[in-house]
Amino acid sequence: MANIVLSNTDYNVVGTRPVRHDGADKVTGRAKYGGDFQMNGLLHGQVLRSPHAHARIKSVDTSKAEAYPGVKAVVTAKDLPISSMENPDQSMRHASDNVLARDKVLYKGHPIAGVAAINPHIAGIAVDLIEVEYEVLPSVTDVQSAMADGAPLLHEDMTTTALGEATDRHSNVATHFSYELGDLDEGFAKADVVVEREFTTTMVHQGYIEPQNGSALWNADGQLKVWTSTQGSFAVRESLAKVLDMPVSRITVVPMEIGGGFGGKIPIYLEPVAALLSRKTGQPVKILMSRIDVFESTGPTSGSWMKIRMGATNDGKIVAADATLAMEAGAFPGSPVTMGAQCLFAPYDIESVRSQGYDVVDNKPKVAPYRAPGAPIAAFGGEQVVDELARRVGMDPLEFRLKNASKEGTRRVDGPVYPRIGNVECLEAARNSEHYNTPLAGPNRGRGVATGFWFNIGMQSSCSIGVNPDGTIILVEGSTDIGGTRASIAMQAAEVLGIPAEDVHPSVADTDSVGYTFLTGGSRVTFASGWAAYECAQDIKQKMIDRASSIWDVSAEDVELVDGTFQHRSEPELKMSFKELAGQLNRTGGPVSSQVSVDPKGAGGAFSTQIADVEVDPDTGKVTVLRFTATQDAGKAIHPSYVEGQMQGGVVQGIGWALNEEYYMNDEGSMVNSSFLDYRMPTSLDLPMIDTVIVEVANPGHPFGVRGVGEVPIVPPMAAVANAIHDALGTRMEHLPMSPGNILDALWEQDGAQQQAAD
Amino acid sequence: MANIVLSNTDYNVVGTRPVRHDGADKVTGRAKYGGDFQMNGLLHGQVLRSPHAHARIKSVDTSKAEAYPGVKAVVTAKDLPISSMENPDQSMRHASDNVLARDKVLYKGHPIAGVAAINPHIAGIAVDLIEVEYEVLPSVTDVQSAMADGAPLLHEDMTTTALGEATDRHSNVATHFSYELGDLDEGFAKADVVVEREFTTTMVHQGYIEPQNGSALWNADGQLKVWTSTQGSFAVRESLAKVLDMPVSRITVVPMEIGGGFGGKIPIYLEPVAALLSRKTGQPVKILMSRIDVFESTGPTSGSWMKIRMGATNDGKIVAADATLAMEAGAFPGSPVTMGAQCLFAPYDIESVRSQGYDVVDNKPKVAPYRAPGAPIAAFGGEQVVDELARRVGMDPLEFRLKNASKEGTRRVDGPVYPRIGNVECLEAARNSEHYNTPLAGPNRGRGVATGFWFNIGMQSSCSIGVNPDGTIILVEGSTDIGGTRASIAMQAAEVLGIPAEDVHPSVADTDSVGYTFLTGGSRVTFASGWAAYECAQDIKQKMIDRASSIWDVSAEDVELVDGTFQHRSEPELKMSFKELAGQLNRTGGPVSSQVSVDPKGAGGAFSTQIADVEVDPDTGKVTVLRFTATQDAGKAIHPSYVEGQMQGGVVQGIGWALNEEYYMNDEGSMVNSSFLDYRMPTSLDLPMIDTVIVEVANPGHPFGVRGVGEVPIVPPMAAVANAIHDALGTRMEHLPMSPGNILDALWEQDGAQQQAAD
Repeated sequence: MANIVLSNTDYNVVGTRPVRHDGADKVTGRAKYGGDFQMNGLLHGQVLRSPHAHARIKSVDTSKAEAYPGVKAVVTAKDLPISSMENPDQSMRHASDNVLARDKVLYKGHPIAGVAAINPHIAGIAVDLIEVEYEVLPSVTDVQSAMADGAPLLHEDMTTTALGEATDRHSNVATHFSYELGDLDEGFAKADVVVEREFTTTMVHQGYIEPQNGSALWNADGQLKVWTSTQGSFAVRESLAKVLDMPVSRITVVPMEIGGGFGGKIPIYLEPVAALLSRKTGQPVKILMSRIDVFESTGPTSGSWMKIRMGATNDGKIVAADATLAMEAGAFPGSPVTMGAQCLFAPYDIESVRSQGYDVVDNKPKVAPYRAPGAPIAAFGGEQVVDELARRVGMDPLEFRLKNASKEGTRRVDGPVYPRIGNVECLEAARNSEHYNTPLAGPNRGRGVATGFWFNIGMQSSCSIGVNPDGTIILVEGSTDIGGTRASIAMQAAEVLGIPAEDVHPSVADTDSVGYTFLTGGSRVTFASGWAAYECAQDIKQKMIDRASSIWDVSAEDVELVDGTFQHRSEPELKMSFKELAGQLNRTGGPVSSQVSVDPKGAGGAFSTQIADVEVDPDTGKVTVLRFTATQDAGKAIHPSYVEGQMQGGVVQGIGWALNEEYYMNDEGSMVNSSFLDYRMPTSLDLPMIDTVIVEVANPGHPFGVRGVGEVPIVPPMAAVANAIHDALGTRMEHLPMSPGNILDALWEQDGAQQQAAD
Repeated sequence: MANIVLSNTDYNVVGTRPVRHDGADKVTGRAKYGGDFQMNGLLHGQVLRSPHAHARIKSVDTSKAEAYPGVKAVVTAKDLPISSMENPDQSMRHASDNVLARDKVLYKGHPIAGVAAINPHIAGIAVDLIEVEYEVLPSVTDVQSAMADGAPLLHEDMTTTALGEATDRHSNVATHFSYELGDLDEGFAKADVVVEREFTTTMVHQGYIEPQNGSALWNADGQLKVWTSTQGSFAVRESLAKVLDMPVSRITVVPMEIGGGFGGKIPIYLEPVAALLSRKTGQPVKILMSRIDVFESTGPTSGSWMKIRMGATNDGKIVAADATLAMEAGAFPGSPVTMGAQCLFAPYDIESVRSQGYDVVDNKPKVAPYRAPGAPIAAFGGEQVVDELARRVGMDPLEFRLKNASKEGTRRVDGPVYPRIGNVECLEAARNSEHYNTPLAGPNRGRGVATGFWFNIGMQSSCSIGVNPDGTIILVEGSTDIGGTRASIAMQAAEVLGIPAEDVHPSVADTDSVGYTFLTGGSRVTFASGWAAYECAQDIKQKMIDRASSIWDVSAEDVELVDGTFQHRSEPELKMSFKELAGQLNRTGGPVSSQVSVDPKGAGGAFSTQIADVEVDPDTGKVTVLRFTATQDAGKAIHPSYVEGQMQGGVVQGIGWALNEEYYMNDEGSMVNSSFLDYRMPTSLDLPMIDTVIVEVANPGHPFGVRGVGEVPIVPPMAAVANAIHDALGTRMEHLPMSPGNILDALWEQDGAQQQAAD
C-alpha cells in the first residue's frame, strides 16, 4: 500500500489508523442488523411476488389466505393510499406500484400482496393460498429489444421526453438527452484516427451479503416506527411518507446496522408492506427477503448498449468524442444513464464532445444505485476506445491519457468547470508505480489500464457533540456506517479538539434523534458528515475556550487550544488539558454541547487509475487476474485503512462485473441464476491482493481536503481488465461479462476471421 | 380542580393540556421497561442476599453453584475493584459494599453474590447452593436504639462528624449539625405560649410498581452498556464508574421506561452485578428484583425521632422555634435529615430559630431519596406543633400561618433569603377555598391543615432540536420521563417556536446520544430540561429568522416570528409560516438544528397548603379521609394536568404514609410485611378525589416562571391528617403510621388519662 501525499500532513489524528469504534460489535456478532430485530408480539411477513415478467392482474383473491389459521392480515395495493386517489401523478404511481402492484406486474418478482402471520412458515403457506388471475403479456428484458419498434410497452401511458421536450410518443424510452460541447463535425475533421465501437453490458447486482429487511410498528397513536437496514434513514422516511401519504414526522426510522449496500439499500421494498400489515394487526411485523427475492425484486444496476466514437491526431491529441448510451431502468424509469453520460469523457480535456443517452424501461426489477451509478458501464466502453486510440497512434496508454487529461479549469461535457482535481496525479502515480514498471512476461498474458471519474456529492448532514466529564466526547450522527465512517467522522472531531480518536464515542441515531442527514451514498459521508463534525467540534472548542477564559478570568481571545491543551497566549502558567477542563465544566456553568447542520458544496470530484495484469486460458476462456493496482485521489485520507478498503472493495466488485456477474434471463423473462452459487461473485480465492496507491490532492472545498472515496474505484476495473485481455489476445471485448464462454466466442470469432483472411 | 393564576397568561401552548407524546405507548404496553429488555444470548441473574440483619461473613464458597449445570458465572465482592485497592476511601467503601458485601452484612437483604445462568430458575437454584458462613451479630433497627450508648456498631471505623468537626467518637451517628438564626433564649423569653413535643416515624418505601432491574453487556472492546429503569442515566453512569473504577466514557447507560421512582430509582443495585457477570461470561445478563428484594434491599426513606419546641405570643406571632431531628440512614450514612432540618420551619418567618439533626446508621437498607426527602417527616412534627400553638392562642390555623408566613426577603434557618415565593398565596388559596369554607359536621370528624416547603433544584440539562421538512421538530433530551415531562419539555419548545405541542417529537436518549443531563429528581426536569428546550428553541428560532431573511434578501433584524409565522416587520407581503419555511430549509442552506446545555440557578422554592377532613371510627381506629384539598404554587403550570397529577400523587402517598405504611421489623431485624398485601398502600378505594388548586406565582428565575411541582405535595399530608385526627378526637398523634392499632392505643391512653382525671 503506497500513499502519495500532496496535502497537509500537520495532523495528529487525521491520517492515522485507529481501531474502528464499532469493531468489537461487528466481529463479535453483537451489532444489531435488520434481521436481528425482535419485539414482543412480533408477526412475520411474507410477500407474494409475480411469477410472470409481464402480465395484467385480472383478480386477486386473498380469502383463503386470510382464513388460514395463524394468519393475521393480508394486504394488497388496495391498502395503499394510491388506491383511493383520483389522479395520482406519475411519480406517485411509479413509487407506489413498485411496492405493491395494482393493475399490472412488470417483472418477475414484482410484489402483489403481503401476509402477516404468527410465524414465517404460516405466512409462506398463506402466500401460496392467494389466488391471482393473470393475463400474461409478452415481455422484454434487454435495452435494445425494449427500444425496438413494436416492443411490448410496459407503461401504456408513459410518453418519451426527448432532449428536454415532452413528446406524444409512447414507448419504453422514458427520456432521451444529449450533452454537447464544441462542434462535433469540426472536431472529427481534425482527427487522423477515428475509432468507433459498440458495447453491451448486462444487468448486475450489488451482491450485498445481508438481504433486505423491514420491520414496522404502526402505533395506536398513528405514529409509524420502522426498523430497517438502510443507507439512509431519512430517505426511507421520505419514501414511506410519499407511498403512505403521511407527513414525515409521523414516521420514525431506526437504522439498523447494514450488511452491505453499495447503493442498493436506498429504495424501500418491504418497509411499507410491513407498515400496512402492522396497521391492520396492531402488532409489529418483520419481513425478510430470501436471496432470490434480493436478485429478482430489489434494484441491481442496468444492462446497457452504447456506441462510442472518438478521434485523435497522430500526435496523440483527442480532438472529438461522441457517445450514445442506452441503459435499462427496469420496470420504472430512472436508470443511471445521465450520470454515465456525464462521467464517460470526464477524465479528458476534449474540445468537441457529445454524450447522449436513453433511459429505457423493461421487464426487470427497477434498478437502484450501484457504486458510481452509470460510470463503470460508460467507462467499460469509453476506456477501451481510448486504449485503442492510444495503440493506433502508437503511444503508451498512460502517456496518452496524461496528454489528454482533464485538470483544473477543464470544462466537463455537462457544463461544470473543474476546481483542483487529482486526475493527472493519479495517472502519474500509476505510470510511476512499481507495477507499471515491472514487465509482464509469458504467453496469453496482458496488461491493461483504465481511468475513471466520479463526482461525489455533498448534501445535508447533522452532528451533535457533548463533552463527558472524563474528557471524552459523545458524537451523534445520522449517517449509516457502511465502510468505517463512524471512525472517519469521529477522527475529524478529534482532530479539531486535540483528543485521540478513541476518546470520541460516535453513534448513529434514528430520525427522531438527530438533525436531518442525507443518505449514505454519493461518497458523501466522510466529506459532509465529517464536515458537520468539524463544525460542531469547532463550536465545542470555542465554548470550552470561553469556559477556560471565564475560569481564569481572562479574555477568551487570549486563550487557544494547542494539541489538546487550552492555554493562555501570554501567561504560560495558565494551561489546562482538554480532560482537565472537561472535568470542571458541570461545576463552572454547566455541560458543553452543540449541534450543527451543514449543506456543503464543493464535494470535489475523484479520479482513479488502475492497472490490471491478466492471463487467459485459451482452451477454457478463463481469465485469471494476476496483479492489480489502483491509484486514487482521496483528497485527504482521514483513515487510510478504510480508504484502501474502499479501493479494494470497489476493484473486486468491478472484477466480478468484468468476468462473471450477469443477470442471465430466459425467454420468459426469468433470471435463471438467482443464487450465489450460480451468480458467480468473486471470492478471495479468485483474486490477487489488490494493491492501492492513495493520492492526496487536497480538495479545496473541505476543511481537511477530503474527497469521497467509496465509488470511483469501481469505475475503471472492467475496462482495465478488457484492455488487459486485448493486450493478451488481441481481441477487443465488446460484451460484459468477459466470462469463459464469451471469451471463447470472441476467440473463435477471431480465429474465424483469421481463417477467413488466410483462406 | 381550580387554578389561581398570578403569572403571565399570554401563551399559546404553555398552560394547555395536550395529549402526552408517550401516551399511546404507555397505555398499549408498547413502552419498553427495564424488564422488557431482550437480547440474543441473554443470561439471567439472581442475587444471594443476607438472611441476617447484622453478621460477619466468615467465608463464601461458590464452588457448588459454579458447578451446577446451566450456571455461567458467579461473582462476589472479590470481583469488584475495591478488593484489589490498598486503601479505598470511605465513600468508595460505602458505595461498593452496598453493591456486594465484603466482610460484613449490615441488613437483611444485603447482597453477597450474583449468579448468571441460562434461565432465572437455575440461577435461583445456584444462589441456594452458595455456602456462606456467618457470625451473627446483634442488630439495631431504629434510630433511637442506634444512637443509644452501647448499641451494636455497624461500622467500627466510622467516627462522628459533630457540628462540622471530625471527632474520635465511634458510634452509629455519622453526622451532627445545627442551623441557628437569632438568639433562642431571647426568643423563647418573648413567648406567652410554648409547645414542646416528641415525634417518631417509621421507615416507609416509595412503593413504585416496577421493581428494580438491571441488564448489562460488557463488550469485547471493554465498553460496558447498561439498560435500566432509572431516574438518571448519567447518575447511573457515574455510580457505575465509581464502583467499577472505570472512566464514564467506557459506560453507556440506556434509560428504559420507568414504572415509578419517586427518588428510589436513583441508586444502583443490580447494574454493577449484571456488569460483572457479563464481563465474566461475555454475554448480556439481566437481573430483576422481586417485591421482597425491593422492600429489603433498595432504599426506602428514614424512620425518625424528633423533638420540636416552639413559642408564640398571645397575639399569634411565632417568636422562637427549636428542633432536633434524628433520621436513620440505613446501613450507610446519608439520611435526608439535613434537608428535613432545612425545610421544617421554612414556611415561617421566625426571628429566633435552631434546627439540628443527626444522621444515624442502623441495620436496615440504605435509604434513598423519596419525594422531598426529609421534609414530610419534619413537617409531620412541625406542623402539628404549629397547629397546637394556633389552638393555644385561639387563632384559625390558616390565619395563624398567614400571620407568620415566610415571604420574599425572609431568611431561612440555613441561610438563604427567599426571592419571590408563593407561600402566602397558597395559604390564602386554602383559606378561600370552598372546602375550607364548608363546615364539617358529624361525630368523630375533624379537619386539619398543614403547609409544606420544598427547595426544588436546577442543575445541568441538555437538549437538541432538529427541524423536520414538514414543519415539526425532533427534540432529544436526557431526562427520564416519570410524570409527563416529555410533554412539559416539548411544550416549552413549541411555545417559543409558535407550533403546536403535537408538532414536537420528544425522545429520551442514552448517555452516548445527548449532552450531560442531571437526574430526574429534585423537581427539576420541567424547570431545567424545560429551560434547555427553551434555549435550544430560541437558537432554532434565530437560525430560521436568519434563513427567512436570506431567502427574502432582507436584514435578519427586520424579521420576527409571531404566532408561528415569520414576517417582515414593515413589509407585510413577506411572511411565511413555520411549516412553509421548514419545507425550504434543506434547499436553502441545509437543515436547521441546535443543541444547548444549561445549568440554571434560581429553581425557586415551592409551597403547598393542604386541608384534610377525616372521620375516625372509635371502635376500630380506622381513619377515613372524607375530603382533601391541596393548594400548591407551580410558578407556571406548563401542563396543568400533570401538575394536578403530581399534586394528587404526592398527597396520596402522604396519606398512605400517614395512615398505614411502615417497615414492621421483628426482633431479628427482619421486615415482616415485605409484600404489597401486608405493606398496606392506599388504593383508589381507600381515598376520596384529591382536589387541587394550582397557584401560579411566577418564578422570576425561569423564562416561563416554572417551579418544580413533583415533591412538595407529599410534605403536608401526614401533618394535615394528624391535625384532622386531633380535631376529631382531641388526641395528638405523635407516631406514624396513624394506623388503626396506633389510633386505638392513643384513644385508650386518652381514655385512661380521662379516667385517671375522673377518678
